[in-house]
Amino acid sequence: MTYCVAVLVRQGVLLAADTRTSAGVDHIATFRKLVTFEQNGQRFIALASAGNLATTQAAITLLRESVARRGARGNPMKAPSMFHVARIVGATLREIAAIDGDHVRAHNGDPAASFLLGGQIKGEPPRLFHIYDAGNFIEATADTPFLQIGETKYGKPILDRIIHPEMPLNQAAKCALLSFDSTMRSNMSVGLPINLWCYATDSFAPGIALEIGERNSYFEYLRRGYGDGIAKVVESLPDPPGL
Amino acid sequence: MTYCVAVLVRQGVLLAADTRTSAGVDHIATFRKLVTFEQNGQRFIALASAGNLATTQAAITLLRESVARRGARGNPMKAPSMFHVARIVGATLREIAAIDGDHVRAHNGDPAASFLLGGQIKGEPPRLFHIYDAGNFIEATADTPFLQIGETKYGKPILDRIIHPEMPLNQAAKCALLSFDSTMRSNMSVGLPINLWCYATDSFAPGIALEIGERNSYFEYLRRGYGDGIAKVVESLPDPPGL
Repeated sequence: MTYCVAVLVRQGVLLAADTRTSAGVDHIATFRKLVTFEQNGQRFIALASAGNLATTQAAITLLRESVARRGARGNPMKAPSMFHVARIVGATLREIAAIDGDHVRAHNGDPAASFLLGGQIKGEPPRLFHIYDAGNFIEATADTPFLQIGETKYGKPILDRIIHPEMPLNQAAKCALLSFDSTMRSNMSVGLPINLWCYATDSFAPGIALEIGERNSYFEYLRRGYGDGIAKVVESLPDPPGL
Repeated sequence: MTYCVAVLVRQGVLLAADTRTSAGVDHIATFRKLVTFEQNGQRFIALASAGNLATTQAAITLLRESVARRGARGNPMKAPSMFHVARIVGATLREIAAIDGDHVRAHNGDPAASFLLGGQIKGEPPRLFHIYDAGNFIEATADTPFLQIGETKYGKPILDRIIHPEMPLNQAAKCALLSFDSTMRSNMSVGLPINLWCYATDSFAPGIALEIGERNSYFEYLRRGYGDGIAKVVESLPDPPGL
């Protein structure tokens, strides 16, 4: 299982992904599920993936091949807007589904995969998309400033309560990491390390890329501090009437 | 959809259930999903249900008929222990499945239902069970002092972080209500009112039964206070390195 979350605030955009795949008692592998496409001064784009690893790896490989060919076709580095990058990613998913889909299903596998796509291309503000397995997509708005894929439910309440478009990017990053912590506590198949990418609006320069692995002292402090903090919040609130 | 949670701490046991069933755009009905069986000085038992409403209503009706007949057979008021009450509830579920199961499935319905069962019978400590659709069941322990049925994922992180067997019953009750709040924010098909039943260990007297409906000022204060509190906790925690 996988968990990925992305947040779009006025100050910037962030994507985070875990690296665990095929988690079972005797088969745990880690693969990076967060990749970036960067061109200083022009565009900074990140993709986080969930679902069938063969599908997502093939999609990333095809996108990278298009970038290497330097043509316009299927190339996220040449697309005129993030909307068109989303279309390219969706078309790539459809291409892989057409080649592999029936074969994977014939072996009782699930070829489905989805992506979170975020970043900024010169000439427009940062944007954030959720690209479905079908290749179509939705875009985050001020009403819904975060998107999730994979094992989304455990990590949603903290985002619902805290994320809003005017919050600072560093606060949003803490929320995203705590959303991961909530997920990992409840679902053993989502695991460290977490890759976090934060890009500041209009910077057109490499953002912050963090890898948070086992025994990361910041993450340990964050999760313990949050747990202690909410226990105190609950204690400080009034008791139900009659209790 | 339904959400029910139950917590067993040294000070007592609590069960909470929402009342929403078949929530859709044009069909929302509320039914009480929390029922109690009480005998002063002897036993206090509560049942919360999730799943097919026809199944759970039939089960409760059959249990109540057994109580009214005053015989030992299938009667939770005569069972020698909570374990045997759990067996009675499981057997009742199997009886209904044998009568209705195939018919419901033939109409593309899902007859499945499950129960949380908590309470105390004189001679043993309070106990808490999760009775599966198959009629078998598990019991809460000090390692796992809470159980959930229905739409469980959104409300689990707060319980994972805070609930422990030595916490006061009133704190556990606040956690249970906040777990509902997390669930209702993320899943529209879980809705108010919430029924909450709290029983104090060895009291053998009616506990606290609360119904929390729309515009309940305590619940409004609790959810707002918690949201504000955790936002402050997140703000107070250090930023990720480099951000």
